[in-house]
Amino acid sequence: MSVYLHDIPLQTAQAAFRQALTDAGLDGLLGVEEIPLDENAVGRVLAEPAWARLSSPHYHASAMDGFALRARQIAGAMPTAPVLLATGEQVIYVDTGDPLPDWADSVVPIENVEALDENEQPAADARHPVWVRVRAGQPPWSHVRPLGEDIVATQLVLPAGQVLRPVDLGALAASGMARVRVSRKPRVAVLPSGSELIPIGVPPKRGDIIEYNSIVLAGQIKAWGGEPVRYPITPDQVELIRQRVQQAADENDLVLLNAGSSAGSEDFSAGVVQDLGQLLVHGVAVRPGHPVILGLIRRSTTGQHVPIVGVPGYPVSAALTGEIFVEPVLARWLGRAPARPVEVSAILTRKVTSPAGDDDYLRVVAGRVGDRLLAAPLSRGAGVITSLVRADGICILPRGVQGLEAGAKVQVRLYRAPHELEQTIFAIGSHDMTLDLLAQYLGEHGRRLVSANVGSQGGLVALRRGEAHLAGSHLLDPTTGDYNRAYIQQYLPDTAVRLVTWVQREQGLLVARGNPKGIHSLQDLARTDVVFINRQRGAGTRVLLDFELRKLGIPGEAVRGYEQEEYTHLGVAAAVSSGRADCGLAVTAAARALDLDFVPLFRERYDLVIPKVHLAGGLLTPLMDLMHDAQFRQAVQALPGYDVGEMGKIVME
Amino acid sequence: MSVYLHDIPLQTAQAAFRQALTDAGLDGLLGVEEIPLDENAVGRVLAEPAWARLSSPHYHASAMDGFALRARQIAGAMPTAPVLLATGEQVIYVDTGDPLPDWADSVVPIENVEALDENEQPAADARHPVWVRVRAGQPPWSHVRPLGEDIVATQLVLPAGQVLRPVDLGALAASGMARVRVSRKPRVAVLPSGSELIPIGVPPKRGDIIEYNSIVLAGQIKAWGGEPVRYPITPDQVELIRQRVQQAADENDLVLLNAGSSAGSEDFSAGVVQDLGQLLVHGVAVRPGHPVILGLIRRSTTGQHVPIVGVPGYPVSAALTGEIFVEPVLARWLGRAPARPVEVSAILTRKVTSPAGDDDYLRVVAGRVGDRLLAAPLSRGAGVITSLVRADGICILPRGVQGLEAGAKVQVRLYRAPHELEQTIFAIGSHDMTLDLLAQYLGEHGRRLVSANVGSQGGLVALRRGEAHLAGSHLLDPTTGDYNRAYIQQYLPDTAVRLVTWVQREQGLLVARGNPKGIHSLQDLARTDVVFINRQRGAGTRVLLDFELRKLGIPGEAVRGYEQEEYTHLGVAAAVSSGRADCGLAVTAAARALDLDFVPLFRERYDLVIPKVHLAGGLLTPLMDLMHDAQFRQAVQALPGYDVGEMGKIVME
Repeated sequence: MSVYLHDIPLQTAQAAFRQALTDAGLDGLLGVEEIPLDENAVGRVLAEPAWARLSSPHYHASAMDGFALRARQIAGAMPTAPVLLATGEQVIYVDTGDPLPDWADSVVPIENVEALDENEQPAADARHPVWVRVRAGQPPWSHVRPLGEDIVATQLVLPAGQVLRPVDLGALAASGMARVRVSRKPRVAVLPSGSELIPIGVPPKRGDIIEYNSIVLAGQIKAWGGEPVRYPITPDQVELIRQRVQQAADENDLVLLNAGSSAGSEDFSAGVVQDLGQLLVHGVAVRPGHPVILGLIRRSTTGQHVPIVGVPGYPVSAALTGEIFVEPVLARWLGRAPARPVEVSAILTRKVTSPAGDDDYLRVVAGRVGDRLLAAPLSRGAGVITSLVRADGICILPRGVQGLEAGAKVQVRLYRAPHELEQTIFAIGSHDMTLDLLAQYLGEHGRRLVSANVGSQGGLVALRRGEAHLAGSHLLDPTTGDYNRAYIQQYLPDTAVRLVTWVQREQGLLVARGNPKGIHSLQDLARTDVVFINRQRGAGTRVLLDFELRKLGIPGEAVRGYEQEEYTHLGVAAAVSSGRADCGLAVTAAARALDLDFVPLFRERYDLVIPKVHLAGGLLTPLMDLMHDAQFRQAVQALPGYDVGEMGKIVME
Repeated sequence: MSVYLHDIPLQTAQAAFRQALTDAGLDGLLGVEEIPLDENAVGRVLAEPAWARLSSPHYHASAMDGFALRARQIAGAMPTAPVLLATGEQVIYVDTGDPLPDWADSVVPIENVEALDENEQPAADARHPVWVRVRAGQPPWSHVRPLGEDIVATQLVLPAGQVLRPVDLGALAASGMARVRVSRKPRVAVLPSGSELIPIGVPPKRGDIIEYNSIVLAGQIKAWGGEPVRYPITPDQVELIRQRVQQAADENDLVLLNAGSSAGSEDFSAGVVQDLGQLLVHGVAVRPGHPVILGLIRRSTTGQHVPIVGVPGYPVSAALTGEIFVEPVLARWLGRAPARPVEVSAILTRKVTSPAGDDDYLRVVAGRVGDRLLAAPLSRGAGVITSLVRADGICILPRGVQGLEAGAKVQVRLYRAPHELEQTIFAIGSHDMTLDLLAQYLGEHGRRLVSANVGSQGGLVALRRGEAHLAGSHLLDPTTGDYNRAYIQQYLPDTAVRLVTWVQREQGLLVARGNPKGIHSLQDLARTDVVFINRQRGAGTRVLLDFELRKLGIPGEAVRGYEQEEYTHLGVAAAVSSGRADCGLAVTAAARALDLDFVPLFRERYDLVIPKVHLAGGLLTPLMDLMHDAQFRQAVQALPGYDVGEMGKIVME
């Protein structure tokens, strides 16, 4: 069956691939191997049901240290009418785990047995050197682990398809196995191709792309129980790619051809698949990941079919293609259940749009704020690998859905355990360089900081909507020279908040090293030879800029680049560093980070705004403690342009 | 600090151990190693925060295939007023990922560009061979991935303590790393000791215990990120154990001494620890697991402290000791967060008692029946490894709690993902040998069968209480000769149920091979030289026995062993096989399983009783389908004494 179509629906593509594998006889285990039963069997998948060969215990075993006897020997024993027994003959001492003598049917624990004093011995002969006394009867089979208590020979110990855990190994050993039959690990070739690619470790020149998709894919394959085989980078030459694909198909069970992300290299791949076998699917309506290719190659040695997946070049697309198309194939070949993430319901914090024709895999961060579990969308860019790294889960907007409003209820497929979401501190608002440091420290104290940069005003709005635990804010009130207080009264009139000073920091103009354009003040922004990079509306830095420009009588239109907006200080620094702009307003540390020169202009206060309702319950306790932690304060103070003198000071309670 | 006490509370023991490690300077990473950034880094723990060395992209990259230009070149372009551009000079073709030329500030995607016909060319000179037309303007930086869009140099990529996932490797590589600094894997020695132990693979004689705790512990250590080192079995000789412990301490970071389960060998271990270092804790009030030993050994080479854990011999105790005492130490040394299982609330199905002084780790199976998540306690025996294998989770009855009533709300620490509980079919009631086969088949169809053997009547009672999805039952109505119907009317008068025939099967007497006592009918049970093994009250087989004995006029007291009860057919077979009894009533397959002789007596019907409310929703669909699956029916028919002729027949709707 060939479905040679562009942008066919995801489910159709998956079904076509599944069917092609079935038709090619590739729908079950690839093979079975027998391995020793040791710790290396953990994670392997049982190829067959394990039926017990031995019972466990395989004999009647004493469950206590004590004396083995027949229950009727002490029938009727009472505190006032004890029974005397000669050790070594009438009763026999056994340790826990010892086999019961054939004639015995129970064990009296040692603590229920009294030793007789020498003068109490009824007969001090050589045959009965020691007598003991028992003051209570007990039913037969007391304190005995009867044969088969744990496992009876022939019973099912573990079903086929079991992914072996450490305790499973114990049960298999207990039931008489010394080796275990597991499914063979599928060998998966990972072929990076593209002339622009360079291996990691080689310093990249402009235009070089560091090849790391093969490592991500290999890591996935390993985690899913396969055996990855990474091949060197093949340049964009159709004949070389053809040879490499054929070689990989001859040597492996599955081939992943990771093409460059350009339209050209994708067509290359499709052509090679068509030449060497059968092209099933070319282009799937899934976002990100469109240019996925699915096909079958013929092994040159045996003529057997080997499936191939053309993996798109963008890293997010590549990793999701692994999850969507590769994992289910490995699950089938290993005979285990396919991975199924935990799903939770959450409330979307932001409106998102989505192409109606696609299944859209939206990366989100998730956490509980008050009573609600929130899902905040991350960057949509297929090139932004950090959006997957930071993601707590995936929210799928199915085909036919053109988007969702803020407040919509969504299902999130989690990448984390649900309880980790309860340890998440959502910070929103103004960006500050110290938040990275804070994230690192909070991580060591059992909390996870998730921060979204929406500017100071955006942060206050988010607090009003109940979408974060705290907001960073540095909004100058021009009439009083004070920070934040007036804005809180305006944006959060009905919310009890605590306002705490975080840092004081320097703001100034970031310029290229040596300040080639001689920029020394905001007046220089009006020069026609100076291009500025701005911050987004609502950012505290933007408020500051607009206030100062107004004082100077410079309208925004007079500033070249005023309409170019970045969302973070580092974004501004990157723009200056790359020559996209000549200068931008940001904190000292951003200049230092990217080795730029800095023209200090202002000193400002950056506060944390915390609705009091979030102070109860302990989630924020480590954060409050850190503000008074000498080591942390020192680490912040060490950043250029920061002053922690007032860190932790409560401005408004 | 030394807490040499017996049965000290779990939290005190854990705190003492933690403090001793801190005092010994063993509270942080054991070391840092630098490893290549490849798929083998998955699962390793970042020893230090990873700060970006490079930005990603590290240049302005085209996000589309198209033409690079300056936005102002096409400012004002409109459908009716297109702009013409000479390729190769005014605009330059770029593939996705290509660097933007220095002078350009955006990319027009190829699909928004029209090629001119030959006769439209404004100037067909050699320098401008091809002209293109653009009919819309766009802002600067459109379709460009600016430098640092994903990662800006110096920003935090991943915090210390991150357990590396495949996508993390991508982010590290993108930010310029080729190697990664991870915490060194702790080396953990696992020392089995005990003269009764034999290695797996050696056929056990009576009294031999197959040594597999070391494999379970080694598997745990590996799964938790350590490097296990298994040592050979040391016999119970104090000098040999002392030497082995010293050797292990010299060669490893942590020593697990897995003593025999007897009181004697435990004291051995404590003595050795005291001799070679410091005994901190001897005996912890946790069940199972009491005889845990915690201490520090001195390395003979350097005098450094090496912690030692004396692990109890019973397999459930051993595995739980790993979870409770070893995992947190490894987490600390690796610098990662300790494992924290997912917890869910569930309703306890059965009353449990617990010693008030202990933290009691109750193994449970869990699943949803109707609206309620149920937790059914498993065997409490510390020797029953299958209770851990079958467990869906652990329910801790804390110190001070003497037990809980059926219906109590408990927290269950899950060993499985919560959604797996939604696929669980709870079967309760009479035991039948085909349930193992059913479990295997259901596993292949995405369901998990959890069965509890409480007898036919117990199953009906459980259904009334809403504690299972179905019950297996073979209750003979002596007045009609029919099965189950009358009992359902009695036990479940208000519940709509479907009664479906599962199998017809033979019941008879299980006797030793060759039938040495010449047992041929139930009359023989009255013989004084015949010991019988009975089934528990409420079992269908017990109902059958009592009915037939009554017919014969034989009272229970006249049957030797009448008061000995087993809960399953295999349990009866094991009792006969081991000589604990001369005969018992059970199905043919149980005799065949343990190679016993069988005296056929009765043929009976075994039905499934299913409340109709559970038939909706699809959970039971695979079960209903299996009854009509030729392959499955054949597999059941192949078991001795079974007839599937009426399998799936609806008796009562």
